[in-house]
Amino acid sequence: MSGNTIGRLYTVTSCGESHGPAYACIVDGCPPGMALSAADIQPELDRRKPGKSRHVTQRREADEVEILSGVFEGRTTGTPIGLLIRNTDQRSHDYSKIMDRFRPGHADYTYQQKYGLRDYRGGGRASARETTLRVAAGAIAKKYLRERYGVAIRGYLAQLGPIPLTLRDWDEVERNAFFCPDPSKVAELESYMDALRKEGNSVGARVNVVASNVPVGLGEPVYDRLDADIAFAMMSINAVKGVEIGAGFAAVAQKGTEHRDEITPEGFLSNHAGGILGGISTGQDVVVSIALKPTSSIRLPGRTIDTAGAPVEVVTTGRHDPCVGIRATPIAEAMLAIVLMDHVLRHRAQNLDVTSPTPAVPGRAPDSR
Amino acid sequence: MSGNTIGRLYTVTSCGESHGPAYACIVDGCPPGMALSAADIQPELDRRKPGKSRHVTQRREADEVEILSGVFEGRTTGTPIGLLIRNTDQRSHDYSKIMDRFRPGHADYTYQQKYGLRDYRGGGRASARETTLRVAAGAIAKKYLRERYGVAIRGYLAQLGPIPLTLRDWDEVERNAFFCPDPSKVAELESYMDALRKEGNSVGARVNVVASNVPVGLGEPVYDRLDADIAFAMMSINAVKGVEIGAGFAAVAQKGTEHRDEITPEGFLSNHAGGILGGISTGQDVVVSIALKPTSSIRLPGRTIDTAGAPVEVVTTGRHDPCVGIRATPIAEAMLAIVLMDHVLRHRAQNLDVTSPTPAVPGRAPDSR
Amino acid sequence: MSGNTIGRLYTVTSCGESHGPAYACIVDGCPPGMALSAADIQPELDRRKPGKSRHVTQRREADEVEILSGVFEGRTTGTPIGLLIRNTDQRSHDYSKIMDRFRPGHADYTYQQKYGLRDYRGGGRASARETTLRVAAGAIAKKYLRERYGVAIRGYLAQLGPIPLTLRDWDEVERNAFFCPDPSKVAELESYMDALRKEGNSVGARVNVVASNVPVGLGEPVYDRLDADIAFAMMSINAVKGVEIGAGFAAVAQKGTEHRDEITPEGFLSNHAGGILGGISTGQDVVVSIALKPTSSIRLPGRTIDTAGAPVEVVTTGRHDPCVGIRATPIAEAMLAIVLMDHVLRHRAQNLDVTSPTPAVPGRAPDSR
Amino acid sequence: MSGNTIGRLYTVTSCGESHGPAYACIVDGCPPGMALSAADIQPELDRRKPGKSRHVTQRREADEVEILSGVFEGRTTGTPIGLLIRNTDQRSHDYSKIMDRFRPGHADYTYQQKYGLRDYRGGGRASARETTLRVAAGAIAKKYLRERYGVAIRGYLAQLGPIPLTLRDWDEVERNAFFCPDPSKVAELESYMDALRKEGNSVGARVNVVASNVPVGLGEPVYDRLDADIAFAMMSINAVKGVEIGAGFAAVAQKGTEHRDEITPEGFLSNHAGGILGGISTGQDVVVSIALKPTSSIRLPGRTIDTAGAPVEVVTTGRHDPCVGIRATPIAEAMLAIVLMDHVLRHRAQNLDVTSPTPAVPGRAPDSR
Repeated sequence: MSGNTIGRLYTVTSCGESHGPAYACIVDGCPPGMALSAADIQPELDRRKPGKSRHVTQRREADEVEILSGVFEGRTTGTPIGLLIRNTDQRSHDYSKIMDRFRPGHADYTYQQKYGLRDYRGGGRASARETTLRVAAGAIAKKYLRERYGVAIRGYLAQLGPIPLTLRDWDEVERNAFFCPDPSKVAELESYMDALRKEGNSVGARVNVVASNVPVGLGEPVYDRLDADIAFAMMSINAVKGVEIGAGFAAVAQKGTEHRDEITPEGFLSNHAGGILGGISTGQDVVVSIALKPTSSIRLPGRTIDTAGAPVEVVTTGRHDPCVGIRATPIAEAMLAIVLMDHVLRHRAQNLDVTSPTPAVPGRAPDSR
Repeated sequence: MSGNTIGRLYTVTSCGESHGPAYACIVDGCPPGMALSAADIQPELDRRKPGKSRHVTQRREADEVEILSGVFEGRTTGTPIGLLIRNTDQRSHDYSKIMDRFRPGHADYTYQQKYGLRDYRGGGRASARETTLRVAAGAIAKKYLRERYGVAIRGYLAQLGPIPLTLRDWDEVERNAFFCPDPSKVAELESYMDALRKEGNSVGARVNVVASNVPVGLGEPVYDRLDADIAFAMMSINAVKGVEIGAGFAAVAQKGTEHRDEITPEGFLSNHAGGILGGISTGQDVVVSIALKPTSSIRLPGRTIDTAGAPVEVVTTGRHDPCVGIRATPIAEAMLAIVLMDHVLRHRAQNLDVTSPTPAVPGRAPDSR
Repeated sequence: MSGNTIGRLYTVTSCGESHGPAYACIVDGCPPGMALSAADIQPELDRRKPGKSRHVTQRREADEVEILSGVFEGRTTGTPIGLLIRNTDQRSHDYSKIMDRFRPGHADYTYQQKYGLRDYRGGGRASARETTLRVAAGAIAKKYLRERYGVAIRGYLAQLGPIPLTLRDWDEVERNAFFCPDPSKVAELESYMDALRKEGNSVGARVNVVASNVPVGLGEPVYDRLDADIAFAMMSINAVKGVEIGAGFAAVAQKGTEHRDEITPEGFLSNHAGGILGGISTGQDVVVSIALKPTSSIRLPGRTIDTAGAPVEVVTTGRHDPCVGIRATPIAEAMLAIVLMDHVLRHRAQNLDVTSPTPAVPGRAPDSR
Repeated sequence: MSGNTIGRLYTVTSCGESHGPAYACIVDGCPPGMALSAADIQPELDRRKPGKSRHVTQRREADEVEILSGVFEGRTTGTPIGLLIRNTDQRSHDYSKIMDRFRPGHADYTYQQKYGLRDYRGGGRASARETTLRVAAGAIAKKYLRERYGVAIRGYLAQLGPIPLTLRDWDEVERNAFFCPDPSKVAELESYMDALRKEGNSVGARVNVVASNVPVGLGEPVYDRLDADIAFAMMSINAVKGVEIGAGFAAVAQKGTEHRDEITPEGFLSNHAGGILGGISTGQDVVVSIALKPTSSIRLPGRTIDTAGAPVEVVTTGRHDPCVGIRATPIAEAMLAIVLMDHVLRHRAQNLDVTSPTPAVPGRAPDSR
């Protein structure tokens, strides 16, 4: 399919299936000289790891990463970094119930039609387990961006089903099982999820990601805009159905006087743009929001067809996330890190000698959300 | 910047500025043997053309396309198709008022900081006038997709500021100045726009695009998914701040039982997925929705800084669209055509010999919007 | 075909056929702020131009370049540079003799089989006239490399048919009609070419290109080595059948003690490597040599088949170069410039902060040829 | 460095260093449905393996490949194929003698200057051990090309130092330690190599590769020609300094009447073109020849500098190939397979529906060498 590489100068190429021997990726383009070991990557993997609370899938995967190459005496060498994650929990599951039928809302039918055959075990290549590699590759980008440019990339759960969540406290995000940014809402989320699990159903979610201290000037219009590449990267995450930058769909009902972010020497007066104008970063926070659909892996039976085209019923047993959006926060952060990293490299290639007569406007401005 | 090429096998490379001599693009990858002349492209350009009603910019551009190459005796030869559109209405405008200051909500500031200098005339490279080329390149893709696969790509205005519009009649879309799909709403749109113009303000919009009769199997996961490439292409359009596929952000509050599109031998029972599962087309309608911000080119004064960093006021005179979303419909259609075309070519490269034992499910299913 | 773009960060995308309306290319990735006008490009085009002596084709083309975009007030803006060259000498030639038959040694047969149809006028897309665009795009790269890094790129005719030519004097190269670097050989070349023309035959040639003052460190192994990209670029020139770096095929019979270029603090003691080790520039002269075949456009009849597959005879009349290698010198220089430019940009993207404890070895070392 | 991917639709992305934990590559774009197991790849790896005779390096590597992904129930699924080869012979070598000095003719100096640091153990990323992955990825391409199109790709040693070798017998190639195609020459090669080893020196070589039964029409001019991509792929192999297609440098002294390959309904009368015209395959044998330099890893002392820039002497002990060209035959075959595979996919993307009125000329014509 040759669609398994993302990025242009910081490239991530991935392989692996849910129930195959291993996942692997090759991260090409990381600058040389950065301190790096598995210990820099593992914490991000652990944030995404299944089985950490009763609200996510109980599948148990060690998700231990091995660095195969690209690091010498504790520093990146500028050569490609190979990452390997073995699959350990390939429970000898009974797939006889789904191997011959297409779970609705899953990629079963489309993979079958596209390739003529498919690895039906746990979704095969379409499994969200592939996002472990994204998180690993994103961890390297995050580290470089943080150490070289002071960029901070953070995400949180902004809505779970019918429950909207407001950013109250960044520190709270890492303290609960939901990446919820509002301590007063955690109990409500827990009881909602308990009821949902009991019901055997699933629900959608919204995740917000914010990059702070982003250098001004990132993005390569007219096509490879920073926002376009972010939209691509986010929409490539399993279950994502929508992407917004800044005001997003709220901009539809806004007037020009409201939406335009006025500028003063002390900074922008608002950030409806989400930190990107004309496809190029302004230096304000880059603000991204994504919609994740409810997974179709639920216990409640649904109508579908089998591989012969006959109508059948399907029930998904097994261990699934009732809200895939919960574990999506570190994934969305990772994708934003990968895109920003790519654009940092692209920017300095062409614009190395640029000096502007205009002083940079301070970036820290009121967030539009 | 080397970000001016979109596509992988059907590639469009573009150049040109609003007030330079010309826009040009090179369309590479169109299969040989298709009948093609400027007359196939011009009608699409005319749909997007400024000056067609009092509700859009009064700038007058002929937008006449010349085919420079790639066509011989009326047929494509398989070699790259060069397209040239001369700028004719380069009115000797007085730019002294904006050349030294950054219009808020525009790319003025970011271009200046990224490149150290900028063509301030009419937005330069950041002008939406570049989308003429997208429409031209999309017209070629549209024609191929229609003739070879029977694909129909159509768009409409789904919301203008506070006024939501429902698809009532595809034919109506081409009959009014707004691409409005509901004849009962046209008068309301007219009076809203008249008032807005009088006010000197602008407003956002939502545009929906639908591709019907799309072959099953398009998309190259895990990164180059069909939906990811659509998100990229749409977000690369000037003023777009959000992209949805199928249910989009509505999926956040949906449950799995509601969202999953059940399958029967007669077809899918719904289309919340927007025609894409696991990044691959299902054969249902591909349904995309985009949010366009209100333009910042308005007569009402706003605060900003000048190129020396000092606070100043800016007023945008000149001829501008009070709702850039109105003329965005043919542009969004073109981008969808370009993406589908690219994926048709990519799909058949790898999957030429694929046969699936499963009969294709009829694609025409109830649209989720 | 989507194979009409070269480069990764400095990209050149080209279109046009020999007897179509025009050639055009889009140069994307040139850094902003460089002074540029058509006058910077035209001299290189003039070096390649037909009709300058009796030893090259008498076709008369103005080859005048128009800059369509990417330059504002005399400086590059960082946006893509569009270049347009109109075809002016589309003599209403009689093509009836070749339209239905395949000239041996030309691309007639392969284009027909690949695309099912072909523009038979003057070779169509396969005409070497496309190299005007390469020369134009290369002129921009040359200027940037010279002004920013002091790189000098020069070429010369190293052999014409049986006559080998030794580099005696760089200045002589521009003084004669052959790019011959040895003043004592010009008369011999003239009489050889006069006889060849009388005979109605053609002959091959060898061209050498040398880049001096190349920064150390260019090249992105293990695939995108500097030498690999040079080989690609050179082999993409019409009629080229071989490429050598440094010692080239002479290395086959060399021993390790002879070939290895020993290093001293004062510089390398030889340059069999041609300035590239492990795919990365050493700082020595980059030395490239290419073989150009004799054109098959000759007056002496040859056997071939017609479009129906029947045996026929073909004679090429018209105005052709009896030695296409003569005008290849500026083309080869341009391709080397494009590759070096691309690698300069790629290098600084990733290696911006690199400092080596080792002082750079002086690059100017004895050339291996 | 992001230069570690080759190909456009059949892509190979590689990582790994000589003395790191492992080599890995991801092969993306292999069509689904092909039978594949490690047993299909291992024989090609064994052809290249060190330690098979006294004439090659005595380093002992198992070179056992593990398939990580992309294969399900013995068939390719169309998803990326991960390949892993662990390094087993990381002998606790004493690198103190070379860690602080640059071996002349190696990439030590250029890696140091480019990246600021380097993995000095056994050449690190610059080690030719990386070619194991190329051979593995090429084996998959070879299998597909053979099974789907009947393409045969074979290579042989065409010259070893001063000893030219003529193709007498394809079967002989696999019977001796040199890939020598002439049984009468094997003894001479053995005594030459024995003397060379005793001397402590190394020597260059020429390898020829031939692809037979190649479909007509492969190649995407004007840049991504088949010959240009072959030149790129071959020049990317360690130690290669020259590439020829067909007549190659012999074309310099040829006349048009001699070089042009005349066509008859029964086939081409010669193959000076090496099976490629205008960058597109003719259906004749694709004939490629490459020059490999003598390795600089020799026992005879040479002058160089250390990492502080001071003059020192270097002697390479360790286990090295005295003629790296010997083991290059399977590598060159693999690179040709990868390029042809990529172009097969690219060709059918755009030209799926092409039919030519002209019957294909039989491809099997006298080889030009």
